[in-house]
Amino acid sequence: MAGIRLPLGREDFAAALGACSEKYWDKHPYHDRLHSGGLDDAELRRWIANRWYYQKRLPQKDAAIIANCPEADVRRRWLQRIVYQDGTRAGDGGLEAWLALATAAGMSRSEVLDERYVVGGARLATDAYVSFALTRPWTEAVAASLTELFSPALMSTRLSALRDHYPWIDSSGHAYFIKRIGAATKDAAHAREVVLTHCTTRDQQDAALDALTFKCDLLWSMLDAIEHAGPVG
Amino acid sequence: MAGIRLPLGREDFAAALGACSEKYWDKHPYHDRLHSGGLDDAELRRWIANRWYYQKRLPQKDAAIIANCPEADVRRRWLQRIVYQDGTRAGDGGLEAWLALATAAGMSRSEVLDERYVVGGARLATDAYVSFALTRPWTEAVAASLTELFSPALMSTRLSALRDHYPWIDSSGHAYFIKRIGAATKDAAHAREVVLTHCTTRDQQDAALDALTFKCDLLWSMLDAIEHAGPVG
Repeated sequence: MAGIRLPLGREDFAAALGACSEKYWDKHPYHDRLHSGGLDDAELRRWIANRWYYQKRLPQKDAAIIANCPEADVRRRWLQRIVYQDGTRAGDGGLEAWLALATAAGMSRSEVLDERYVVGGARLATDAYVSFALTRPWTEAVAASLTELFSPALMSTRLSALRDHYPWIDSSGHAYFIKRIGAATKDAAHAREVVLTHCTTRDQQDAALDALTFKCDLLWSMLDAIEHAGPVG
Repeated sequence: MAGIRLPLGREDFAAALGACSEKYWDKHPYHDRLHSGGLDDAELRRWIANRWYYQKRLPQKDAAIIANCPEADVRRRWLQRIVYQDGTRAGDGGLEAWLALATAAGMSRSEVLDERYVVGGARLATDAYVSFALTRPWTEAVAASLTELFSPALMSTRLSALRDHYPWIDSSGHAYFIKRIGAATKDAAHAREVVLTHCTTRDQQDAALDALTFKCDLLWSMLDAIEHAGPVG
């Protein structure tokens, strides 16, 4: 029987996915500083401007998953993620809400959109995620999205931090997180179900766990790059 | 000035795109036979079952274009193509309408969905289109879609042919073409505008024309493969 590796049972596989939270970027020192009020204005703006590059690429990452997905029901549900970020018309959607955070933090739209503050490592990590979704099996890219299992708690912490420690940011900038906490919870529950259902061999389960680790690593490296860059402006 | 190639003016570029109609598959001998009533029942079913493979891959092709497109306004409009084919719920949308054509022509859903009649050349040509959209600049993939400038006329001919020459196909099977003629006209007008706007250098214009030629060639080869295959069942 050597060499035969049985698939994990559903609950064990779900637990293994959940255990990847150990590598999630909620424990990164830069997040600690952000959430304890330790960032100065310029650092907070740098974080917002760099995260913009990640946010703006999310619809393309999600479209890459749909492009590789032969399951119409999964495509239909996943399409809602693109609509969520791009909106149904100009001036609508999650990307606009992120730009509202940027302007509430004192930046102009144009200095965010021209990406002058985006550091190489943040761009590299983001582009690696989109490339992963374009080139790897769609189930692995869905597994990579499962950092959203861990993000609602982090966003709740962040929302409190913005209110408590950064009152100079107008509350109109909080909308992205207020709306996203609930949406991410639903999106993650769907994605988790897709992974549990479609990754049925041990090799597929291992690939899904590797994908989620890869995603945690790339998010972590994005914050490393932001942390090590010089101050904005 | 040797080596400098000025871009075509907008009207000349539009005319060059339109001239690709010379290579469009409306002139393929198999379409001639289809539209003049020359196919027997088995041949018509074979055509429907092979085209199913092409139809079912369209949402993935369109998602690949969105995955590579950095323009939110283009993504928003292009998303409508995915919704058109996949529908907003199971049992809805263009793909379902194509399956309705298959059942109206006397096939079961399962014998279409299991792709038993799909010939290698039709699969190859279709997959080449999806790969093109995944790997080439999004403007080229949009240009490749411009065969839809030529398809409404072909679909009108086909609709008449179905009514006149193939009355054994229940009219419930005609819905795909009835709806698609108007939708393709609008989609093609949008795609043409995107290409005219975003392909501004002569190299980009040439690449767009090459992409449209590539698409015409792959459609043609799909019909070659269907024609040269043996009869169904």
